Amino acid sequence: MIIDCHGHYTTAPKELDIFRQAQIAALEDSTKAPSSEALAISDDQIRESLEGAQLKLQRERGTDLTIFSPKAAGMAHHIGTKETSEAWSRVSNGLIHRVCSLYPKNFVGVCQLPQSPGVSPANCVEELERCVTELGFVGCNLNPDPSDGYWQEPPLTDRFWYPIYEKMVELDVPAMVHVSCSCNPAFHFTGAHYINGDTTAFMQFVEGDLFKDFPTLRFVIPHGGGAVPYHWGRYRGLAQDMRKPHLNEHLMKNVFFDTCVYHQAGIDLLTRVIPVDNILFASEMVGAIRGIDPETDRSYDDTKHFIEAAPGLSDEDRYKIFEGNARRVYPRLEKHLAARSN
Amino acid sequence: MIIDCHGHYTTAPKELDIFRQAQIAALEDSTKAPSSEALAISDDQIRESLEGAQLKLQRERGTDLTIFSPKAAGMAHHIGTKETSEAWSRVSNGLIHRVCSLYPKNFVGVCQLPQSPGVSPANCVEELERCVTELGFVGCNLNPDPSDGYWQEPPLTDRFWYPIYEKMVELDVPAMVHVSCSCNPAFHFTGAHYINGDTTAFMQFVEGDLFKDFPTLRFVIPHGGGAVPYHWGRYRGLAQDMRKPHLNEHLMKNVFFDTCVYHQAGIDLLTRVIPVDNILFASEMVGAIRGIDPETDRSYDDTKHFIEAAPGLSDEDRYKIFEGNARRVYPRLEKHLAARSN
Repeated sequence: MIIDCHGHYTTAPKELDIFRQAQIAALEDSTKAPSSEALAISDDQIRESLEGAQLKLQRERGTDLTIFSPKAAGMAHHIGTKETSEAWSRVSNGLIHRVCSLYPKNFVGVCQLPQSPGVSPANCVEELERCVTELGFVGCNLNPDPSDGYWQEPPLTDRFWYPIYEKMVELDVPAMVHVSCSCNPAFHFTGAHYINGDTTAFMQFVEGDLFKDFPTLRFVIPHGGGAVPYHWGRYRGLAQDMRKPHLNEHLMKNVFFDTCVYHQAGIDLLTRVIPVDNILFASEMVGAIRGIDPETDRSYDDTKHFIEAAPGLSDEDRYKIFEGNARRVYPRLEKHLAARSN
Repeated sequence: MIIDCHGHYTTAPKELDIFRQAQIAALEDSTKAPSSEALAISDDQIRESLEGAQLKLQRERGTDLTIFSPKAAGMAHHIGTKETSEAWSRVSNGLIHRVCSLYPKNFVGVCQLPQSPGVSPANCVEELERCVTELGFVGCNLNPDPSDGYWQEPPLTDRFWYPIYEKMVELDVPAMVHVSCSCNPAFHFTGAHYINGDTTAFMQFVEGDLFKDFPTLRFVIPHGGGAVPYHWGRYRGLAQDMRKPHLNEHLMKNVFFDTCVYHQAGIDLLTRVIPVDNILFASEMVGAIRGIDPETDRSYDDTKHFIEAAPGLSDEDRYKIFEGNARRVYPRLEKHLAARSN
């Protein structure tokens, strides 16, 4: 089977956005606050939002299960207070749970966390636990920059982040390191902030020694690891100059890259330099790039095709990328997959 | 011949650093201000700083001419005022001029600009003109983030930057878009800030229409273009979704990538996806990565070897990468090269 480890609910019914706009308006005028019950979205609306989009693409491309989370740019952790983020996360994750309940064979949930700039991620522990133990989610998205473009939090290796890591380890769930929107006019969100976030997070892991403290903690760095595989020599060299262990020892038991790289040459590089055990299939559809590549007449984000065409991969390698590694990184998938085969 | 378009004076005599420390101390206590005459560095000291480093590596690797500029991380535009940056730039560029005068066959100058956060780059025009017309420099380094890690300037396509672009066009010199140090603990300087700066600048050019206003303006994006070639499909797709012209039309007459990518697979990707007319040989030696790669027993930054080994390049392609493109992007090189052949 083919597990896509990176999909966001970018096609959610407009009521979700209306709720969010009301929530934001209420920051200025509390009489405008929506109740989460105001979010009246029917099952049919949810079906409609997916049937012509993610489900259609799953069928067309031949992928089976998407690890699905709220829209990344929509997390917008910089808005309001931690209470704002807490309410917004509950609503967003609740909607993902409804998607997964309607289509248990097609989607499994990953949650947004109620991060807020300068606030200890200890405030995220409760929502992570709720999503994993009550809603059956298998992981979370962790934003290394809740300021959304101004990078004011300490590096991911800092003790500031440890409360959420402790809960991740306890629950045995990974985080995808995923920034949100960009408020900084210097950074286009999908063209700069996303990729920079990936590169930055990886280098923070290189500089630190986080996995000495948390040997079983696991992160997926999306968008093919940002710039990292293309500069793999630079990162090997930096680790060496810093007298760190070889990257394979230092962090590649804990850090994984997805395959959201939208051309054949990029996927060929990724699979050439990164150990196959560290690569998880993903497309981020429906997401950043929605067009058809005139060079291939396929969607840019049809990454399955690139993996199939990448040279030098054995059948076992492809099994790992498409399925085996996801089962290992997200062990809570097993229950879903067992239920699915009944 | 082989022209390395990206080298910094990272091995400058310690007097330069002492001068800078005094300059910084004087920000708090003006009695500590150094005069630029205090910077007593002999010709022999300069020779010594280069003979065992850049010149040795040029000889060993078989490269001929390095386009040479002050240490990038040392620019530190966030420090002090524009007057601080002006004095520091004059001193730093003056030392580059001495290097180029002592070794006219080996080095040609590119200047640091006296940028300062929030200050119009109009203040850089005079120093650029001095360096080009009086000192024989062939280009400049432009820092898209003079805050050094907090990204507070408008995008490079904003009219804020036009005064320096007008002078660059008039003098027919390109800029390398090169950030400096990082004050932001989130960003390691050579492992994150440099690469993010490259990716960010490219995406700014994609989003804007700068080259409609300046059809002959030219930028070199260093470090192999940051993440861009690895995500070339993403950038083609983003331009398409934004209804911009194809990247080759939109900006590839104006934007060039260097080859500071420190492993064979990265260079293979670069030369596979980026038009050969847009690639300029560079190593950034002596720079970010100083070790020997145990996988190859060569220096990570010995990029000449990777270009020679890259598949699919014709002799003409290699000529362009090693020499021809640099002559085109830096037309003021011609005078130096003509003098050299006498």
